[in-house]
Amino acid sequence: MKKTTTTLADGRELIYYDADASVVRDAVDARELPELHVVSEMRHDPILDEWVVMASHRQGRTFMPPTNRCPLCPTTADNATEIPDDDYDIVVFENRFPSLTHRSDELDPTVTVPAPVERVPARGRCEVVVFTSDHDRSFSQLGPDRVRRVVDVWADRTAALAAMPGIAQVFPFENRGIEIGVTLTHPHGQIYAFPFVTPRTGRMLESARRYRDRHGGNLFANLLAGEQRLGDRVVAANETWTAFVPAAARWPIEVHLYPHRRVEDLTGLTDGERDDFTSLYLDVLQKLDALYETPLPYIAAWHQAPVRQDRDLAYLHLEVFSVRRAADKIKYLAGTESGMGAWINDSTPEQIAALIRRGPR
Amino acid sequence: MKKTTTTLADGRELIYYDADASVVRDAVDARELPELHVVSEMRHDPILDEWVVMASHRQGRTFMPPTNRCPLCPTTADNATEIPDDDYDIVVFENRFPSLTHRSDELDPTVTVPAPVERVPARGRCEVVVFTSDHDRSFSQLGPDRVRRVVDVWADRTAALAAMPGIAQVFPFENRGIEIGVTLTHPHGQIYAFPFVTPRTGRMLESARRYRDRHGGNLFANLLAGEQRLGDRVVAANETWTAFVPAAARWPIEVHLYPHRRVEDLTGLTDGERDDFTSLYLDVLQKLDALYETPLPYIAAWHQAPVRQDRDLAYLHLEVFSVRRAADKIKYLAGTESGMGAWINDSTPEQIAALIRRGPR
Repeated sequence: MKKTTTTLADGRELIYYDADASVVRDAVDARELPELHVVSEMRHDPILDEWVVMASHRQGRTFMPPTNRCPLCPTTADNATEIPDDDYDIVVFENRFPSLTHRSDELDPTVTVPAPVERVPARGRCEVVVFTSDHDRSFSQLGPDRVRRVVDVWADRTAALAAMPGIAQVFPFENRGIEIGVTLTHPHGQIYAFPFVTPRTGRMLESARRYRDRHGGNLFANLLAGEQRLGDRVVAANETWTAFVPAAARWPIEVHLYPHRRVEDLTGLTDGERDDFTSLYLDVLQKLDALYETPLPYIAAWHQAPVRQDRDLAYLHLEVFSVRRAADKIKYLAGTESGMGAWINDSTPEQIAALIRRGPR
Repeated sequence: MKKTTTTLADGRELIYYDADASVVRDAVDARELPELHVVSEMRHDPILDEWVVMASHRQGRTFMPPTNRCPLCPTTADNATEIPDDDYDIVVFENRFPSLTHRSDELDPTVTVPAPVERVPARGRCEVVVFTSDHDRSFSQLGPDRVRRVVDVWADRTAALAAMPGIAQVFPFENRGIEIGVTLTHPHGQIYAFPFVTPRTGRMLESARRYRDRHGGNLFANLLAGEQRLGDRVVAANETWTAFVPAAARWPIEVHLYPHRRVEDLTGLTDGERDDFTSLYLDVLQKLDALYETPLPYIAAWHQAPVRQDRDLAYLHLEVFSVRRAADKIKYLAGTESGMGAWINDSTPEQIAALIRRGPR
């Protein structure tokens, strides 16, 4: 893939990824954009031992623009977008409303917090990955060639972001569907480069360490082997990847995709493994979209090893899950989940797996 | 308060709490209810080291019935409800669709899970607390006398549930508002008596233990003292309670209410502290309902010490929070929160506190 790096009118980076090596990307962003003014800080909550990011400039971010004002479509005479060219293949650019940014260095000096709470600028990077110039597609409709290239883009961004100063974890993900708060319908994902190991990843790696100390072996690898052997919760598989509903699933719909070989992050996948992921993931997404009459809202979250620590404990995988628990009902995270972190699933993983395997109904 | 314990047609317990000691509660539940058939199990997720409850019988639970079929209203000739009497003060009864129950003892023998995943019946108890017979009230409109009695009911249930076999934590809470999935609008709360210490409480107490080991003192008490001293995030206070937005708040609206004296659970509050909580909480809820033109959807979660462990580390408090981030916008827990447990707040705790203090706008 050809990679062309350029700059938007306000200084943000934009990167074109092109299958066609002959294409020239020299369109200029002619917009008059306001100077980037970003004040983002993070505070360490001593009660839950977690960093919380405060990004108050994000209140004004773009919310469900009409299709002819979509900021992710190619630029036209009437609509100057985030992508200056009049067409593109796949693009990545810095989010205009980032939660994490290397551009923020100051903390509001008028604010004071009690001693056990720490405050620092929320340094990091938030990127948008636009999967296609076609506004009306969904990821499941991108086709294998394009999805295969998206995998390469994710891997390339993982390497680039991990090399930036102070980055602890690179997190590519896709939010799809109004039901989970997606504000732009044009098919796109995001990448967060965090300055800390995220709370969930931290807990997962603690568990993996305890498991290795007690039982030996890799927790994720042994769980995968168990699911492959039992088969009850497997929804799809090929030579190098398996997709299954985890035995302790929390969400009404939840599928985890693991490569059979332990790799730490997307950069470690072979070409063959990237090919196999592509076909398996498209199969899974098409099964998920067939569950109901309308496409499934979902979150797809790449679990990668932290940049600098515990890489030997980690196991790259993708977790795809949905809040929809029936055609017209969604699961709300109410008192037990939001208040106490105690998850109640109104279904069983075996029922969920059977539902997904069954396909259209 | 007078307490009358009786039984519903399917064997579930119903308890009347009455301010008027002369009232007689002998109405009989004349409904023909199906036998309780509850299969609830819980599985230990070895990756996040958390129990997840699977309650597949709950899929069929009551969902937004019309007002004249409300199951929490007093029974009338046309509507035989969960409360057989034609009026009541405050009642508590066992949930007909419980996530946790001592009635479930069996696990589906056809299901097998990989070795590191544990499965056991999800034993415990789920109760409904109906705050008033008036269908159209909200908690903030109950008035001080009734709220004061609700505090006594919560404390009484905490003692009763903690005494039941295998209960590790008693969690009274209220979910309010369609935006967070409330299926019955009649003013009511719930109590979950968990057979495990919930994940969030477990992590909070680990932090409190680390803090005591490193710095001495109680983490919660020292945070409260810091917030009282700084004042920036305090939204209301009286002689024995303070309400503040925590310095690392996660939700768009979030208020924590702490008694000034460390107590472990609701049973430890003096009469004076219960009186003061009542007036402070009503003040806070009225401020919250004044934020927008429509009442605020919220979750109110009581953090109590576990029944048997780490009681010396715990500090009773109430956490009230909302997903609403603007008059017409709610915060969705998308990729970063749901995928990685990394919270992004589009506001700051200081802005939130100023907003709540300001009251009606």
